[in-house]
Amino acid sequence: MSRVDGPGARIGLTHGAGGRAMRALIEQVCLAGLGAGALDDGIGLQALDDGAAVRAGSGWMVLTTDSHVVKPIFFPGGDIGRLAVCGTVNDLAVMGATERPILTCALIVEEGFPRDDLERVYLSIRTACEEAGAAVAAGDTKVMGRGELDGLVLNTAGVAFCERPVPDAGLSPGDRVLVTGPIGDHGMAVVVARHALALEGDLRSDVAPVNGLVRAALAAGRTSITAMKDPTRSGTSGALHEMARKSRVGIVIDERSVPVRPSVRSAAGLLGLDPLVMACEGRAVIGVSADRADAVLDALRAHPLGRGAACIGRCIGAHAGAVILDTGVGRRLLAEPEGEPLPRIC
Amino acid sequence: MSRVDGPGARIGLTHGAGGRAMRALIEQVCLAGLGAGALDDGIGLQALDDGAAVRAGSGWMVLTTDSHVVKPIFFPGGDIGRLAVCGTVNDLAVMGATERPILTCALIVEEGFPRDDLERVYLSIRTACEEAGAAVAAGDTKVMGRGELDGLVLNTAGVAFCERPVPDAGLSPGDRVLVTGPIGDHGMAVVVARHALALEGDLRSDVAPVNGLVRAALAAGRTSITAMKDPTRSGTSGALHEMARKSRVGIVIDERSVPVRPSVRSAAGLLGLDPLVMACEGRAVIGVSADRADAVLDALRAHPLGRGAACIGRCIGAHAGAVILDTGVGRRLLAEPEGEPLPRIC
Repeated sequence: MSRVDGPGARIGLTHGAGGRAMRALIEQVCLAGLGAGALDDGIGLQALDDGAAVRAGSGWMVLTTDSHVVKPIFFPGGDIGRLAVCGTVNDLAVMGATERPILTCALIVEEGFPRDDLERVYLSIRTACEEAGAAVAAGDTKVMGRGELDGLVLNTAGVAFCERPVPDAGLSPGDRVLVTGPIGDHGMAVVVARHALALEGDLRSDVAPVNGLVRAALAAGRTSITAMKDPTRSGTSGALHEMARKSRVGIVIDERSVPVRPSVRSAAGLLGLDPLVMACEGRAVIGVSADRADAVLDALRAHPLGRGAACIGRCIGAHAGAVILDTGVGRRLLAEPEGEPLPRIC
Repeated sequence: MSRVDGPGARIGLTHGAGGRAMRALIEQVCLAGLGAGALDDGIGLQALDDGAAVRAGSGWMVLTTDSHVVKPIFFPGGDIGRLAVCGTVNDLAVMGATERPILTCALIVEEGFPRDDLERVYLSIRTACEEAGAAVAAGDTKVMGRGELDGLVLNTAGVAFCERPVPDAGLSPGDRVLVTGPIGDHGMAVVVARHALALEGDLRSDVAPVNGLVRAALAAGRTSITAMKDPTRSGTSGALHEMARKSRVGIVIDERSVPVRPSVRSAAGLLGLDPLVMACEGRAVIGVSADRADAVLDALRAHPLGRGAACIGRCIGAHAGAVILDTGVGRRLLAEPEGEPLPRIC
């Protein structure tokens, strides 16, 4: 595991990129430092899940937070405002809390940032909230001087309630693993936009609120849905590794059934990138017991955001913590990503 | 009012400084842009209060968010970690939610930031949480490249529950206005630390969680407490102006009864600054009906953080929205601050 220790150690870009390096930072510095300051009941910080869950009345309150530093702030298919709302709504949704997300929204803006761009961002926030049935309840605005911040960063935190939280750690041998659509669209769209690459095909971010889609899955699968995760930084591979490790199962992925758009596959090939480690911002990874897998898949495909849903693998009792890629001609271990290949992807 | 409009308009430092300019930005861009995306029941974004309040069961859920960009991140009396926890705990407290704040904590770190400093910040977060009876439930870590961010910024959002939220808009003519201790300590400590000024006296930030203190005030004053506010950016004057404007009352401040430490008064005099517009991070401004004012003041002074509490003024029916300074020799209108005099004070 990447170390962040030793005298004079400094934080590196991979420590924010969602993979092994970030986990090292969080475990060695954040959790160790917080100690008794961390929540000690429910699903807290130690779980490193998509959000926290705290008892509230007869049910649960789910909370999450994300700071968004995506570069460029406008990209094909979305912008930082849409990304922030969807990121938070989706974290709540994959914890099982799909109804009426209540958000906070805190911007830090660089002095000199154009008002017009700020208006575009707010319009995106509004549109995404309307799509998700979410509302912004509280906000904050700070300004930093020229050169102290690159443009605009945006934090959204969110709260929603549910009867039963769904952790990312509940997989059992035999469970099927579903994804709700083609993977890697967001990561590839941002990479191509950032470097102004002229590539064939329509590369657009998948950024969208999946709470309605997850609600449909939960209605079809109920308690048969054993785990869910939002495959953002470090992508589907990162999500699968976390789920496998925490659930103490192996996950065998059938590579040929992983949905990847042709445009994403071809761009990834050209750039030497793997769609499995590229961020999605409008997908969910869902674990479901085998007997309900078809019903959940049907429910996903009946939803406009889930038409490309697929069953991509299954859980086994052996190789606990590992993700195994079945390529059709053989099997190999899929390495846990060190982090998202590009910084500032979300 | 400051305008943020016109073609090519850009965001300036004062738009994040807590006064008139920030209100202009929020009203003209943020609220106008969010529209239907903003919460439409309870106390929402439009109220521009310290936090939002949403119905939850038979009571209320209070939410708030703040991004912290203070410079320097370590200053006499505290650091960005303590500031973030206290800022959020205090926003919840002055909304009436003093019990068990549950926080989220999202850091954005510049590549190359020292691990040791990050550990100090987490230790501060932990200590402040312990003081406040708060817990961090969820977190996020992002890293930006060298030169893309000045060091470290930290967002905390928070949730707490209460039976009855206390708005900042509930003052009536006759109400007394209390502050819970000497004002301007935080702002002055940060200014002096940032510019490495060699001044006489012990200038330390007042940064502290006031939820226990506010709880004592609420126990003594109950529904006689009509309004509360956290006097951070743009200081006590900014808080008083907001309370007067929203409550449609005039507030007459007796200048001689405003508690200011001698060291702060003398530094302010040297630097040409007014303690009334300098941020506090461990104080509350409390409105209370005249008949309970002494009881609340006694309760405040009995608490370790409230020994310097004072009644500084009273509300009148005339001059709605104005703050009037009674200097002892005459009265004058106190201008609404354009913003905190220094950027990045919190």
